[in-house]
Parts: sequence; structure tokens; C-alpha cells
Amino acid sequence: MTSTALKRPVCILGLGLIGGSLLRDLAAADHPVFGYNRSPSGARAAAGEGFDAISDLEATLRRAADDNALIVLATPMPAIPGLLDAIAEFAPDCGFTDVVSVKAKVWQLVQERGMADRYVGGHPMAGTADSGWEASHTGLFRRAAWVITYDHAPDADQSWIDLWTEVVHLIITVGAEAIPARVDTHDAAVARVSHLVHVFAEVLAVVGDNGGALAQSLAASSFRDSTRVAGTQPALVQAMCETNADAVVAALDEALDMLHDARDTLAKPHPDLSALADAGYAARVRFEARHGARAESVSPVKISSRPLLRLHPGTEGWITQLRHAESLGGRIEIF
Amino acid sequence: MTSTALKRPVCILGLGLIGGSLLRDLAAADHPVFGYNRSPSGARAAAGEGFDAISDLEATLRRAADDNALIVLATPMPAIPGLLDAIAEFAPDCGFTDVVSVKAKVWQLVQERGMADRYVGGHPMAGTADSGWEASHTGLFRRAAWVITYDHAPDADQSWIDLWTEVVHLIITVGAEAIPARVDTHDAAVARVSHLVHVFAEVLAVVGDNGGALAQSLAASSFRDSTRVAGTQPALVQAMCETNADAVVAALDEALDMLHDARDTLAKPHPDLSALADAGYAARVRFEARHGARAESVSPVKISSRPLLRLHPGTEGWITQLRHAESLGGRIEIF
Repeated sequence: MTSTALKRPVCILGLGLIGGSLLRDLAAADHPVFGYNRSPSGARAAAGEGFDAISDLEATLRRAADDNALIVLATPMPAIPGLLDAIAEFAPDCGFTDVVSVKAKVWQLVQERGMADRYVGGHPMAGTADSGWEASHTGLFRRAAWVITYDHAPDADQSWIDLWTEVVHLIITVGAEAIPARVDTHDAAVARVSHLVHVFAEVLAVVGDNGGALAQSLAASSFRDSTRVAGTQPALVQAMCETNADAVVAALDEALDMLHDARDTLAKPHPDLSALADAGYAARVRFEARHGARAESVSPVKISSRPLLRLHPGTEGWITQLRHAESLGGRIEIF
Repeated sequence: MTSTALKRPVCILGLGLIGGSLLRDLAAADHPVFGYNRSPSGARAAAGEGFDAISDLEATLRRAADDNALIVLATPMPAIPGLLDAIAEFAPDCGFTDVVSVKAKVWQLVQERGMADRYVGGHPMAGTADSGWEASHTGLFRRAAWVITYDHAPDADQSWIDLWTEVVHLIITVGAEAIPARVDTHDAAVARVSHLVHVFAEVLAVVGDNGGALAQSLAASSFRDSTRVAGTQPALVQAMCETNADAVVAALDEALDMLHDARDTLAKPHPDLSALADAGYAARVRFEARHGARAESVSPVKISSRPLLRLHPGTEGWITQLRHAESLGGRIEIF
């Protein structure tokens, strides 16, 4: 199994929902893992449950350097520049990855610091509206898409290819599916299916709230589900949307065109919303068909609905294979 | 208990998700109930499960007239005018209610036919993206809000007040909560928390689909939940939004203002989405606080989070009580 091929210890910076859940999963798989959390209370909470966690960044990174650990930056975007500087200072030879929901900006920060040859971008599509160590749990990443970027691949040496391979193993170890994508295609895709969803949820929550007690009393499951992610900490929503602003604006403009068309026809004496209703229905049916095996099966043996491509990193044509997987939204495995 | 005070047999016209579930609940409560479904296959399916259902409208309504049944129009809006005409012809003395998600238009159709003194509007806030008899099940209405209109109350005689009381009993018999509202306030409220949700879901589904295979592969639970109601039959979405067009346009305009503000700041060199993110978060937190007892409790004894007002229909000040309940989104019981 490829999942046994994660060799280096893992050092996680940030023990919130994502970092904490990663720490739990790796520890549960008996893989050496230790972590840092900025707030001492979060680190104490993790340590109190028997995990190897402290709130001293320098000590954590010096240990990562000594152990040649794979470092995972598991904080929101605003903390990334400071962590990159700390890695450059205290763990200057360690390879690292991240879990930030926007990839072009992180890639830019990495390149500006001359750290491109030891960075592989990552983004697990998992999470809830809750955050913090208290929200973390094992199994969060099971069958989730976890994007792994490869913009550096054409310029890479063997040590980067080894690092990239190690990150794939990390992803598979926690039960996620490794989806290769370049930073720009990733950012455009998540603007559509995640960041725009957050913007819409905020707006719906406010419009519903403005309706007062009667509207709130009548709000049922459709309103609850569609506003769920408005419960995300505002600073996290800001960080993801503002950092991916260009792609979010593009998705928003597409949405605004449709909303204005809907508004225009509804303002007419004989409204006809069939174009939007038909298109939305067809799109949702395609989504359900694609995700059917994942979402609906009650069988304990779940089968991924994503196409699988096996590849050997660094061999002739592997970048072409990655592009192919990216265009399909496919998952990869290492042989 | 008031729930035992439903005295007349109930005749349900339309055995889809709502009508079928109502038929099942009333039968399960041993209350006399029979139904009509336009498609013979739906009526046969219900009859095949032992329910009293046929596909002959005239025969059904003549029986309702003989039994002095309470008639429930359980079809989407497009079928309502024809059913009202049939009731006028074959069951000219029966009182009736409906379950359509828009109330002003139905009220207008009723008034045009001079049937105001035997009509009480209703709208159960229950349902899924699925439809048809196959989707119906017992318990659909448990703890759901079920709006009951009272625009006719100031002009009403005792027989209308008795009908109104009977409809409250019907609502409570199936475990729902009777929320009084006038047709215009109802329509404005559901435009915000239901119809706009449908429009947003259609748009999000299309924008996500336009992102192609990668975007669809990366779509996770937030996208799934926020586009769920795009799986509703397009004709149903059209019927509800087009029939409530004025109120949907008003809600949409409020939403468009916020979306354009978001778009404008995201297009700036230093975007600041804090106003929207903070407002959306605060609105969602208030929603969760209001709905907490309903949505989150795992106790088998669920406590409604809606304020309760007990009233005696027709007595001095009862319309003032209804207005008060409406302004609170409160539920009523009869004493």
C-alpha cells in the first residue's frame, strides 16, 4: 500500500479544525507527528489529550529541522507569511506543504522567499462551519478531495519530486484523495464551488434576518442548509475571498448576470423563469450523478466516483499525466 | 387535547409529497380521509397501499359534499384555478384550505370566485427536493411551521370561524405548528427564506457546473447543501417564484445590493469583505439561536422554539391576538 510510504515525521503548524484533525489522524495511524499552536490554550488542550503539541514556534521548527520532518502549515492565510519566515530561519532545509484554501497567493509568497524548491501546495476540501481544536476529529478527510499543486514540476529536481511524492502519501494516509491542480486552475475552481457559496450564504442569511421574526420562524431546512457556512468565522471567510478576489469576482459576475436576468423576467407582467430553473436543475442532476457513489451509498465499502490515475513521479510524461488528471478532476496514486 | 377536535372527514386533492404525506398522517391518526390524484398511476399507488384514493375528481368532490368534508387543495399553483371551479360546481358548500407556497395569488383566485367565506389559506413549510406520492411519508410535518391565513377574519361569520378553527386542528393533528399570517406578510417572508433560496441554488448549481470536471470534483458539502433545492422540479420552482414575483424581486434587489457591494470591494486593490462577513455571521448566529431547540436537540422530547399564544377564535380581540402572533412568528393553539 502506498499509504505506508510516508517516511518522514510530520510537523503541523496550527492545530485548528484542519491541523488538529490531521494530527489526530496521523497519530491514530501510528505515524510520528508533533504540532505547534500559537495559542497556549489550544496547545495545552491537544497535549492534555496525549498529543505532542506545544506553543513554542522556534522550538517546534528546530525539532522539525533535527528530525527532517515534513512541515504542514495549517493556519489561515494571514499567518502564512510569518510562518514562512520562521521556517526559513529555523528549519531552512525542511520541505513543507500547506492547507490554505487559496493557492496562487501562497505560491507567490513562497516564490518571493526563494523557497519554491521545497514547497508543495495543498488544499483539503474538508471542514465545517466550526473551527478550532475543539472541532477537530479523526476521519475528517476520509474520501475528501485534497488538492496537490504541481506548478513547480517542470523546474523540479529529484528532492522536490520526492517531497511531492511524500505529500501524496500524507494525503492518502489520512484517507483523502489527491487531486493534482495548478494554483490558478485550483483558485478558479474553488471560487465557484466554495468561495461563492460563502458569499451567497452570507447574503441569504442577512436577507432572511431582515425579514424579522415571521420570516425566521418560517425558515425551514432549505434556508438552514443554504446559510450553514455563514456560521464560519467572518475572518476566515474574508481571508479566503479577499485572497482569491480575482477568481471570486469572475464567478460573482457570472452569477450576477444570471440573477439580473431572473430579476428582469420576474419584474415583467408574465415572468418566465424557465431558463434558470431548467439550467439549475440540469446542473444539480449532473452534480448528483458525479457524486452519487460518495454521497448516497449506504454500503460500508464506499467507492470513489473520481477517476483514478496511477503515475510514477518524475518519469517521462508525468506532467502530462498530471494535466490529464487535473482536467478530469481525477485522483492519483503513486506506483 | 385540541388535536382531537378535527371533526369533519378530510378530502385531499393531489397526492404528491405534501398531499400524500397528509393522507398518510391523517390515516395513521385514524381520522377519516380520502383523496384524489389526477394521474391514475399515483392514485393506484396510494390505493395499492390501502388508502382511499381515486383519480376521478367529480366523484371525489361529490363525496366531499355528501360527507361535508374539509377539502385540502394539495397541488402546485397551476392546478388551483381548475380545482376551485370544480369545487364550486361539485362541492359548493364545503370549506377548503390549500398548501400552496404563495398565498396572495390563491386568495385573489378565491375572491374572484366569491368563495372567500369558505376558504382558509395554508402553507406547510415542509418538503424536500423530491416530489410525488413516492416521496410522501408520515411525520413530514412534525414541528414544521404551517401558516394559516386570516385576511377574511374581520369580515367573517361564525361558519368561517368554525372552518378556520378546524384548519388549526388539522395542522395540529399532523404535528405541525399553526402560524397565523396575512397573505402579503406571508408572501414577503417566504420570498426571503424560501423562494430566494431556490433562485440562489439554481445560480450556484450552474456556476459550479460551468467550472467543469475539476470544480465539480472539488465541490464538497457546502456546495452540496447550498444547491440541494436546485434538484426541485423546475416547474415547481417556476410556479412559486413567478406567482410571488413582486416579493421575490424585492428580496432579490436587497440581495443584489449586497452582492454588488461585495463585488466592488473584491475588485479593489485592498478588498474588505468584513461588512458582509460580519453581518452574515451575526444573522446566522441569530437564526441558530432561534431554531436551536428544534434543530440541535437530541432529546426525544423536543420543545418548540416558537412562542405559543392560546386563543379562542371569534372572541373579542382575537384578530389583535393573531396580529401579535404573526409579528412574533408565533404558533397558536385553540382553547
